Amino acid sequence: MSTKDQLLLYLKENQGNWVSGELISNNLSVSRSAIWKHIHKLKEEGYTIESAPKKGYFLSKASDPITADEIREGLCTKVFGRKNIICLKETDSTNTRAKELAAQGAPEGTLVIAEKQTKGRGRRGRNWFSPPGGGIYFSLILRPAMPPGETPRITLMTAVVLAETLISLVKLNLRIKWPNDILVNRKKLAGILTEISADMDAVNYIIVGLGLNVNNLFENSPQDIKKNATSILIETGNRVPRIKFIQNYLKLYEQYYDMFKKNDFEPIMNRWRELADIIGKQIRVDVIGKTHIGEVMDVDNDGVLILKDDQGRLQRIFSGDVTLARQVSARSLKKGG
Amino acid sequence: MSTKDQLLLYLKENQGNWVSGELISNNLSVSRSAIWKHIHKLKEEGYTIESAPKKGYFLSKASDPITADEIREGLCTKVFGRKNIICLKETDSTNTRAKELAAQGAPEGTLVIAEKQTKGRGRRGRNWFSPPGGGIYFSLILRPAMPPGETPRITLMTAVVLAETLISLVKLNLRIKWPNDILVNRKKLAGILTEISADMDAVNYIIVGLGLNVNNLFENSPQDIKKNATSILIETGNRVPRIKFIQNYLKLYEQYYDMFKKNDFEPIMNRWRELADIIGKQIRVDVIGKTHIGEVMDVDNDGVLILKDDQGRLQRIFSGDVTLARQVSARSLKKGG
Repeated sequence: MSTKDQLLLYLKENQGNWVSGELISNNLSVSRSAIWKHIHKLKEEGYTIESAPKKGYFLSKASDPITADEIREGLCTKVFGRKNIICLKETDSTNTRAKELAAQGAPEGTLVIAEKQTKGRGRRGRNWFSPPGGGIYFSLILRPAMPPGETPRITLMTAVVLAETLISLVKLNLRIKWPNDILVNRKKLAGILTEISADMDAVNYIIVGLGLNVNNLFENSPQDIKKNATSILIETGNRVPRIKFIQNYLKLYEQYYDMFKKNDFEPIMNRWRELADIIGKQIRVDVIGKTHIGEVMDVDNDGVLILKDDQGRLQRIFSGDVTLARQVSARSLKKGG
Repeated sequence: MSTKDQLLLYLKENQGNWVSGELISNNLSVSRSAIWKHIHKLKEEGYTIESAPKKGYFLSKASDPITADEIREGLCTKVFGRKNIICLKETDSTNTRAKELAAQGAPEGTLVIAEKQTKGRGRRGRNWFSPPGGGIYFSLILRPAMPPGETPRITLMTAVVLAETLISLVKLNLRIKWPNDILVNRKKLAGILTEISADMDAVNYIIVGLGLNVNNLFENSPQDIKKNATSILIETGNRVPRIKFIQNYLKLYEQYYDMFKKNDFEPIMNRWRELADIIGKQIRVDVIGKTHIGEVMDVDNDGVLILKDDQGRLQRIFSGDVTLARQVSARSLKKGG
């Protein structure tokens, strides 16, 4: 173990308490100046460490840096995130980075993660607000042997994994919003952006991007973000260690992905239907250049939303923006619709 | 017009005849050494020019270089191939090059073309034999506003455009082989490789790659190529100018693509069905890990092959390798199948 790692371990054992430089120096048998140098490095990596004359050093309980070492420590996966983790202080978009790596041959399970995205992307060219400090922005590379037509299932599966991971960590009244968001109290907690490279026979790679608001408070955020976004901290009042979420998510993802590859999709889809709670609901779906209103009959195994309009016709909708009927103004809902 | 272009024009006007350096020098008012220099450049670009003392210069009638200028001269398109043509002496794969350019934002209609591919690709990781001298290997970048599920239609449309272009230029008894080849006398004349980049809502870009054997003779080719591949020259005994094919193809492609974007797909699909001549036929389809045998009921508008097996069950097949029943051994065809 390197001196820096020994120092970090020592600070973690005393997390939330001041430890003097002298004590550290004696315990680890290193000079005071070496300690100062390593503390500096740890702070650069994202650890929240205070220092004060006579008091020494203080690792804050809120310290929650995302580093490859932190993710790997205690990670219970076979492949995902084990070998290839790319942690960035800042990037334009983790999906864009992951696509570049995948095009260069990066293997399945490669994880690209950033503390901040300057051009975080959502569906349909929308932005995903990605300030530093409390969010998780990462992208996973998958290489399943499947035709491109089946890839929407990956988005459905990811939503279930995401929801289940959250439920296992905190008490949240969440709902999956078709096709790719997680809402709490109608506000956006997380979003998924799935991108593919394929020929007509088979997928080359899939990038599954995730944006999750963990400990964000959105205090200095634009008005529409404050209005439409929420975080675990806002909803529960509690901080969730981001590393814990990432580790649990990767573990569960690998389990579900194994089921998926064995064609065992039905249980995943059934759980999706429970978590989405959309079947039987009156909704409006805005598709580019079109609006559909009607009752949701199903979301099928290919992720297609089956809507029955007020004339009893069934519409197959591949993607769009859903509004629940209670939010649809009476004006735009036809009688009996 | 540059001196080199003037020289080329002069040689073209006298194509198939010797013209003396002195005559050129007098006509174009340039020195003999300047002529020699420009001839050298033209030969580098791929023009077949002979030179001999006392006789002068000779532009062969078989000279058939592919250059951006040659493609543009007489090209009747609005967008395709007008601004962005990348001509390469040699590359690994034009699809790979086009993908890189598309990822960097290259516009719709960009054309990447090579005289030789060192790693020409076909479906399912297969190679496309791409020697220099007689083939056409190019890739077109498309950016249609459509969901990824509809992209197989692009392959169907491309096959029709390819077949129609060939029919307009030469007398060939060709057949479209589902999903993406053109056969003449059961041998491979051309292949299409469609690759996509997309998210679940929309296509980002589509690369439509084409390999076509025009004036190849396959004399020094591997045995399996000699057995399974053919060219226009082999089938008809006539050389087709490659530039002519490219220009006609691009023009027709643009016309069909405009129809396609207006959702006018039915006529394209009907023509596909005529040219494929597969409906009602007994076939075997090899899919990864599976073989289907039965009668083709249809290839639907999404490019899915609908097969009825000997028990009357309908199978929906997205992609695979087709063998016609007359080629299927009696052993593997069930009675009544």
